[in-house]
Amino acid sequence: MAGWTGKLLRVNLTTGKCASEPIPDAWLREYVGGRGLAARYLFEELDPTVDPLSPENKLIFATGPLTGTSVPSSARYMVVTKGALTNAITTSNSGGAWGPELRFAGYDLVLIEGRAPKPSYLFVYDDHAEVRDATRYWGCGVFETEDGLRRETGLPNLRIAGIGPAGENLVRFACIMNDKHRAAGRSGVGAVMGSKNLKAIAVRGTQGIPIADPESFLRAVWQLRRQMNENPSCHAFGELGTAATIDMTQAWGGLPTRNFQQGQFEHYANLNGNSIRDTRMYRNKACFGCTIACGRVTYLGDAWNKFLVNTHPRNWRVAGEGPEYENAWALGADTGVGDLDAVLKANWLCNDLGMDPISMGSTLAAAMELYEKGVLADDQVELPLRFGSGDALVRMVEATAYREGFGHELAEGAKRMGEKFGHPEVFMGVKGQEFPAYDPRGFQGMGVAYATCNRGACHLRAWTPGAETSGVFPPHTTEGKAPWVINEQNRSTAHDNTGICLFVAFAGGPIESLVPCTAAATGVPFTIEDFVKIGERTWNLERLWNLNAGLSRADDNLPKRLLEEPHTSGPSKGVVVRLEPMLNDYYASRGWSSDEGRPSPEKLAELGLANL
Amino acid sequence: MAGWTGKLLRVNLTTGKCASEPIPDAWLREYVGGRGLAARYLFEELDPTVDPLSPENKLIFATGPLTGTSVPSSARYMVVTKGALTNAITTSNSGGAWGPELRFAGYDLVLIEGRAPKPSYLFVYDDHAEVRDATRYWGCGVFETEDGLRRETGLPNLRIAGIGPAGENLVRFACIMNDKHRAAGRSGVGAVMGSKNLKAIAVRGTQGIPIADPESFLRAVWQLRRQMNENPSCHAFGELGTAATIDMTQAWGGLPTRNFQQGQFEHYANLNGNSIRDTRMYRNKACFGCTIACGRVTYLGDAWNKFLVNTHPRNWRVAGEGPEYENAWALGADTGVGDLDAVLKANWLCNDLGMDPISMGSTLAAAMELYEKGVLADDQVELPLRFGSGDALVRMVEATAYREGFGHELAEGAKRMGEKFGHPEVFMGVKGQEFPAYDPRGFQGMGVAYATCNRGACHLRAWTPGAETSGVFPPHTTEGKAPWVINEQNRSTAHDNTGICLFVAFAGGPIESLVPCTAAATGVPFTIEDFVKIGERTWNLERLWNLNAGLSRADDNLPKRLLEEPHTSGPSKGVVVRLEPMLNDYYASRGWSSDEGRPSPEKLAELGLANL
Repeated sequence: MAGWTGKLLRVNLTTGKCASEPIPDAWLREYVGGRGLAARYLFEELDPTVDPLSPENKLIFATGPLTGTSVPSSARYMVVTKGALTNAITTSNSGGAWGPELRFAGYDLVLIEGRAPKPSYLFVYDDHAEVRDATRYWGCGVFETEDGLRRETGLPNLRIAGIGPAGENLVRFACIMNDKHRAAGRSGVGAVMGSKNLKAIAVRGTQGIPIADPESFLRAVWQLRRQMNENPSCHAFGELGTAATIDMTQAWGGLPTRNFQQGQFEHYANLNGNSIRDTRMYRNKACFGCTIACGRVTYLGDAWNKFLVNTHPRNWRVAGEGPEYENAWALGADTGVGDLDAVLKANWLCNDLGMDPISMGSTLAAAMELYEKGVLADDQVELPLRFGSGDALVRMVEATAYREGFGHELAEGAKRMGEKFGHPEVFMGVKGQEFPAYDPRGFQGMGVAYATCNRGACHLRAWTPGAETSGVFPPHTTEGKAPWVINEQNRSTAHDNTGICLFVAFAGGPIESLVPCTAAATGVPFTIEDFVKIGERTWNLERLWNLNAGLSRADDNLPKRLLEEPHTSGPSKGVVVRLEPMLNDYYASRGWSSDEGRPSPEKLAELGLANL
Repeated sequence: MAGWTGKLLRVNLTTGKCASEPIPDAWLREYVGGRGLAARYLFEELDPTVDPLSPENKLIFATGPLTGTSVPSSARYMVVTKGALTNAITTSNSGGAWGPELRFAGYDLVLIEGRAPKPSYLFVYDDHAEVRDATRYWGCGVFETEDGLRRETGLPNLRIAGIGPAGENLVRFACIMNDKHRAAGRSGVGAVMGSKNLKAIAVRGTQGIPIADPESFLRAVWQLRRQMNENPSCHAFGELGTAATIDMTQAWGGLPTRNFQQGQFEHYANLNGNSIRDTRMYRNKACFGCTIACGRVTYLGDAWNKFLVNTHPRNWRVAGEGPEYENAWALGADTGVGDLDAVLKANWLCNDLGMDPISMGSTLAAAMELYEKGVLADDQVELPLRFGSGDALVRMVEATAYREGFGHELAEGAKRMGEKFGHPEVFMGVKGQEFPAYDPRGFQGMGVAYATCNRGACHLRAWTPGAETSGVFPPHTTEGKAPWVINEQNRSTAHDNTGICLFVAFAGGPIESLVPCTAAATGVPFTIEDFVKIGERTWNLERLWNLNAGLSRADDNLPKRLLEEPHTSGPSKGVVVRLEPMLNDYYASRGWSSDEGRPSPEKLAELGLANL
């Protein structure tokens, strides 16, 4: 049996040099792929104290060993860099078809260094890679850029990951978009790409992906497919999309509303999975090889021209994709906007202009709070930033991407904006990154999950609401939550490393099912214990990198509002987050020091990280 | 019978005030409409010495009494102002459906004064008129702006005349475009509009047009329709479009090639009416109420992505309209480009970005001559400006509109560009305006027609090639041409004043047929003699205005190339233009002084202009 090998494409934008190199065998076995491997490279090569927008920062696109294979939902790649929003290590994950295409071209990772002297794109066709002029695409939206690159190259199947105007303009929460509607969304990875003058990475691959033991692999894949098909969640995701979650968070009082000033939103039913499916959806849509198909292809209602106030005609689209649950919340409940058309429109704008809708909505919500409280006056904003204003939502999304008017302030994210206007307390997030759509006063476990996530506030590393609403433990207690979160973080990290979508775990395919797939694909007899250890190793490596970047226990904190201001009504009435006991428990259970949360020498030795 | 009245909409952009006022009855009778009336207003109100791009300049949109009626081809309006390209009075004429819509709204003329404090558009709905914010459209192409305004207002039948990026950027030969593909093309009227921060005039009208004697009117209209239907030229225009003319000018050695360095173009057959119809045309297209339908709706060939070199993706259109004969020549033969796809693409770009393709092509041809002769070096241009380069053609059209790179020089027109680079002799035109597509060495009469046209070089005021190739007089002689040109100028000017397309005269409807239509429409018993006198009056009034602006006999001249350098081959071999004798004859026959060409007091008295 041929040995398992990995290939990295190293691109220096300053010199234009592209070269491939083998990935060290030991790293493959220690980290499996994706996020873990990329963190290992970053640990090896990048000074964690550099300015994230300087040419010294490095930007890694990483697939896993299952990306592009016939394992269901094998579409994922991970973007790892020093985040423009967070100054911490990023782990921004995306689906679509770009990741698989990169593997078809023969690469597992792409590592970008330096800064191009002018707007450029990276063109990869199997083993041919070159940096090309992209001047003509600078200023263009994501959709136009993708169509343009396909036309220019004459390759209709070219797959493109790139940035929109937001990334070019260094919006702190700019995304990297691929396949038009899929996003490596969080932490400002798009701003890092923009700072490198890199508009896009366009990939066409025509090669197969080597599988060490095809028979065992197919058996494992079909076992997983059967499991998923028999699981009702798998079908529910396809039917109602992720936005169905809004009913659950609303019911438990954990749907953050108007910048976390309330825990329930009176118009939640306008934005949920049923409303989207029944009134605004052409069809659902799947990423590469996915049997879930949670994507929504959507259109506007009859009043499609309602939210054109002051927007540029080139952004007047009347069809697009989404929103997912997170976006329906951030652009909807969190800004108090209950009009689904405004949310759809804002969501499409985020996709085309290349911005993270979570941070966008949350930053706008913080600005709305400042406006409603009189901190921002009418002469500072082009239109009133009232909670619930669809006009303000749509226009300010656009203005942020172009840094027009007050959009220039929003483009800095809620933390920097709040500080600038003397009200840091309006920032709702961790490590500079805005919260996603779960109020930890409704789901206590999310408090410690948010506080400890290496990339800043995140719901995808340990999602507690499922366990907290199904009897594993109650939502408002703290007991046992830290160890549960740690185990989830380790498992989801190993899951991420394989290149498979996390939703597989929610749809009948826990990580245990991915272990035999990975073992058969790579020829390495991984066990579930190996996987959890790989996840823990990756998590600790990321933590070490963050500590070296200057982060500490002070950055594992929550805003005062969550710790001291309970909701006054609803199911989570009277609850605040008791973070301190959970955090102490977390550090101890992790084997980290209680002062700064540094992994102990014993822990590092156990994980094989002692010499780093 | 109700008296004939006229209504002018006066808009002051500086104050935003819109008001309607009656047009003096005497002026209506003395000038009938359109171009004549507008010249009368300009003479009355505008200091001819102002900078054309200053707020002091005035910009008039003028229809005629037949515009929008059931007379065939009644689509025309005229734009009269001080030209940004010429410093002379402009008479830029356009079809489509905007002019009729203005009359349906109840107005005959719109007079624009001042400068708006920010990008604005004028909205007219019957007797409601207001200046509105157009910030969102600034930077947008013509097509996007038109679609946007229709969406914004919710009026699908809104008709729009406006400018593209070229007008905003004060390109000296920017057009005013209406109905996306129709142009008030010449002399830089779009730059004047841009200098006023006026992006567009959007009009919706729901009223009828009063006809003094409906029965006589319909009888005259049907007589004209019959005449035209029985005339083969009428059908030939619809079948092959104006580009069929290229075969004739090529045959007579009067097709200016490579900036008038040759009189025949070896690839002419790629660009003619047959090639366009047979290989690139979906269908022909008519303006409002037109029975000729000379417009071409066109597409690109298989190699549609051939000319994307360095162009912005937002300009990658694959369908559009045109080219007309003039554009096929200016963007084709004059630049030496024989590739029809490059010409189509460049023509569409001119339409969407809002530039005159004649001046564009001719200015580029002058730059190509400078490049080929080594005056322009490779480090001054982004790509080689070689005659015949489709890449250079397409990209430089775009670059000119945005004033990018060397496009900034081209945007000044050939005269200013040639002077700047020390070679004024490469400018082929009169009064700063580039020639259209007839080489006066092939058609001698065009020499005096070009030299004496009030708006600078123009083929539409007295078109001699028809008479010179059909036995009226030979092409290379001078005898009798000045009086013929004068008569044509007077007749075509009266024709223009009615609001009817000049092509009607080529398609079986001479001005004699328009006299009874106008008489019946207005209730004034005009005769053909009245009409010729009205034309002569208008012509002399324009001349007076130009003289007051500082123009003189020195401006009624031709470039040295036409006067001294004969072609060395082809049917016009050895011929130069003998302008002097024709010009002397012209001045004498006009009753103008021989020194500066000033109308004599007797002539002014005869025309009723003595007191001006």
